[in-house]
Amino acid sequence: MSPETQRLLSALGNRLGAGGVLAGSDVDQRYRDDPDGKLGVLPEAVLRPRDAEGVAAALAACNALGQPVVVQGGRTGLAGGARVQPGEVVLSLERMTGLAAPDCQAATIVAEAGATLQSVQEAADGAGLMFGVDIGARGSATVGGNIATNAGGIRVLRYGMYRAQVLGLEAVLADGTVLTSLKGLPKDNSGYDLGQLFIGAEGTLGVVTRAALRLHPKPASEVNAFCALPSLDAAIALLGLLRQKLGPLLSAYEVNIAPLYDVMVASMAMPAPLPAGSPVYVLAEIQGSEPERDGERFAEVLMQAVEDGAVDDVVVSQSPREFRALWDVREDANRVLFSMKGLIGVDISIPLARMGAFLQEADAAIRAVDPGADIYVFGHLGDGNLHYQVLTADPAAAYGIIYRGVAAAGGGVSAEHGIGVDKKQWLNLVRSDAEIATMRRLKTALDPKNILNPGRVFDLDPTV
Amino acid sequence: MSPETQRLLSALGNRLGAGGVLAGSDVDQRYRDDPDGKLGVLPEAVLRPRDAEGVAAALAACNALGQPVVVQGGRTGLAGGARVQPGEVVLSLERMTGLAAPDCQAATIVAEAGATLQSVQEAADGAGLMFGVDIGARGSATVGGNIATNAGGIRVLRYGMYRAQVLGLEAVLADGTVLTSLKGLPKDNSGYDLGQLFIGAEGTLGVVTRAALRLHPKPASEVNAFCALPSLDAAIALLGLLRQKLGPLLSAYEVNIAPLYDVMVASMAMPAPLPAGSPVYVLAEIQGSEPERDGERFAEVLMQAVEDGAVDDVVVSQSPREFRALWDVREDANRVLFSMKGLIGVDISIPLARMGAFLQEADAAIRAVDPGADIYVFGHLGDGNLHYQVLTADPAAAYGIIYRGVAAAGGGVSAEHGIGVDKKQWLNLVRSDAEIATMRRLKTALDPKNILNPGRVFDLDPTV
Repeated sequence: MSPETQRLLSALGNRLGAGGVLAGSDVDQRYRDDPDGKLGVLPEAVLRPRDAEGVAAALAACNALGQPVVVQGGRTGLAGGARVQPGEVVLSLERMTGLAAPDCQAATIVAEAGATLQSVQEAADGAGLMFGVDIGARGSATVGGNIATNAGGIRVLRYGMYRAQVLGLEAVLADGTVLTSLKGLPKDNSGYDLGQLFIGAEGTLGVVTRAALRLHPKPASEVNAFCALPSLDAAIALLGLLRQKLGPLLSAYEVNIAPLYDVMVASMAMPAPLPAGSPVYVLAEIQGSEPERDGERFAEVLMQAVEDGAVDDVVVSQSPREFRALWDVREDANRVLFSMKGLIGVDISIPLARMGAFLQEADAAIRAVDPGADIYVFGHLGDGNLHYQVLTADPAAAYGIIYRGVAAAGGGVSAEHGIGVDKKQWLNLVRSDAEIATMRRLKTALDPKNILNPGRVFDLDPTV
Repeated sequence: MSPETQRLLSALGNRLGAGGVLAGSDVDQRYRDDPDGKLGVLPEAVLRPRDAEGVAAALAACNALGQPVVVQGGRTGLAGGARVQPGEVVLSLERMTGLAAPDCQAATIVAEAGATLQSVQEAADGAGLMFGVDIGARGSATVGGNIATNAGGIRVLRYGMYRAQVLGLEAVLADGTVLTSLKGLPKDNSGYDLGQLFIGAEGTLGVVTRAALRLHPKPASEVNAFCALPSLDAAIALLGLLRQKLGPLLSAYEVNIAPLYDVMVASMAMPAPLPAGSPVYVLAEIQGSEPERDGERFAEVLMQAVEDGAVDDVVVSQSPREFRALWDVREDANRVLFSMKGLIGVDISIPLARMGAFLQEADAAIRAVDPGADIYVFGHLGDGNLHYQVLTADPAAAYGIIYRGVAAAGGGVSAEHGIGVDKKQWLNLVRSDAEIATMRRLKTALDPKNILNPGRVFDLDPTV
């Protein structure tokens, strides 16, 4: 054990209680887990506080010693933000999984940072309410990690990013200062909204310990539809039509661009909802308050779009089973993509007006470098967010082509996954020197010793 | 002219162009305008840049000289944030009123800080879209001021605070650093969302110069209803019922508590929609996408509530004229209240669960001090935001009773107006020492010489 770790363990002493500090051989391999398979180092120590005061004690001790800390929630992040770097100890929120009972009148719930997204969803559901964010990793991703990365997912176009769900939070600064703002008021302009600082800052400015989250009325109806379309432009036009005709009912609008669906259908365990071969597929969902009517309205708009030639084919779910089955098809993309060894993937945001041109240009540029490259694109079209995958012999070239194309199109190099350590080399393509310098000013003001998730998002010392 | 002002004028020279600097007798009285009638001092100089570069030049010069600056938009703020303090020069955004054409596909618009709220609303409307924020001062309140105060208004329960409308912004720091993030992407986690810093910070951390704002589909139907109810509890229950039955259609829910409506009716120029005498009145509004159906659904839910005894009486608008007339009744409260000399008013946020008890206790405590006090309460019940007015011989006692009651109820001392200079003495009732110390850390990091709106929200030096 290093002298640094020994000093830390002695400083924390019994403060974190039984199981509060793991060191040496007690440190499980799971703290190296990474969904991208890029294992970090095994940490020498793991701090597992039970509450904000424990987090404060742990951070104060680390800060006094200049000990770098990596914060871990569910370790489902896709940018390496929670991956352990040499010399770091882990601060895990895994013992802080408490959930208060939902406040039904205010439509809020207070959750500890280590509670999973799914537990929040289920608590809301049990109270006749709904939580607005859903992502594939719901079973392990946590409230704290979701806030730190400002999680997105499939219903952003209706309910907003995770930021829109946060009515208040509690966070601990590097020096152990505890900031608590959990009133959950929908309107409160009593001084700076400090919680905003920690949302999407990837654990670099403070550690979120609790949050007051907004809940929504549970929809009385949920219907989805799977559509085959002649082009991306047609899919964008259909999005506009559904928004215009159905207003806030539209709750998800997912795209799947050829040849991905064709590859999925070739090995799909379930029946394919529509035949392969179309240039673009869309999964659209509505959530409404009139079960006897919403599905019919949705189907009418879609059938008219088919008659008008805007949509080639459509299937509308007629039961909860069919509704679930269409979502399973959407999620089946991951089965196919995760099985492709060496696939690289990015999570990009592009203005709808430039998306078609971006896709064409990126495709041509990647194939110019590697004519055998395979490109698979799906994502949250309603938010301009694409998950773009490439199987290529020259991944470095593909990354460069994609990210430079994104920057030229006025997009973002991370729509919802964050920057972490894996994407920070691309940050300056989309953020100005003045912006990155201002991020450094904030980091220095709140974490002057740079102990919290150091080297995530950007390097504090630009000369490193 | 003071030596400070002379140095500033000479430093800025011709940089801001004709009309860019007003000094001495060229400074109009309007820079002292204050909707509360609390005139500040007449500034010795007014800086009127035309663009972000001009703002940067002005601030860099002020920062070099340590010259304090007060930022002015439409001067409609209700907390004294823009009121000129001795020694300050005014930085007015009044020559930056540009509006780009709305981007209909992305449903966004880029506006300069000096553009009025109404101009944004009209531009959106002209493009078949809608802007989500509306407040009474729409004709003079500006984009920059609305962002600086995180404006609220009547449709927060549907569209969120102003923060939820901002997809990106441009701001200038005290040292002249220009931060530009105007892509308007609905999803972008590429580094810190720096724009959040400036929303609701009341001009203390930077000067907003432009914003990319979110627009919404224009509703095809708008219907409102005016209800008489037996109690505040009944009004809160009706809110829950409307949310459950109508989902996202519900777009406003305003309350008027006795005896305010009775006083209004006694001198109202228009016909009263319902007789006076009820304990509570509510104006509810829906915005939908099915004109032939939405009003009918809304009326059905309300009629059922009358049958069930939850609502005493209701009138539902049957035409755009009646719709407008009911809103006029809501806004008629201001006519009556503004005519009362010596009235004090606060803008408070209270959890719905505690609102009834708060009102009872505050009422009793104020009358214990001044048995002749009159209390008039209306506001945005859907957001837990009340505008609470008192006509009393002892306003100081009333302020203390109200704000301490708010704090005890877990509320906020400013729901939507901000803290400015007028409410900063109450900030520590609702924010912890740790929170206020963190606000100071941020202020010091971004404005180390404390030149931007000094003394608003909090004093940088707590010993002052």
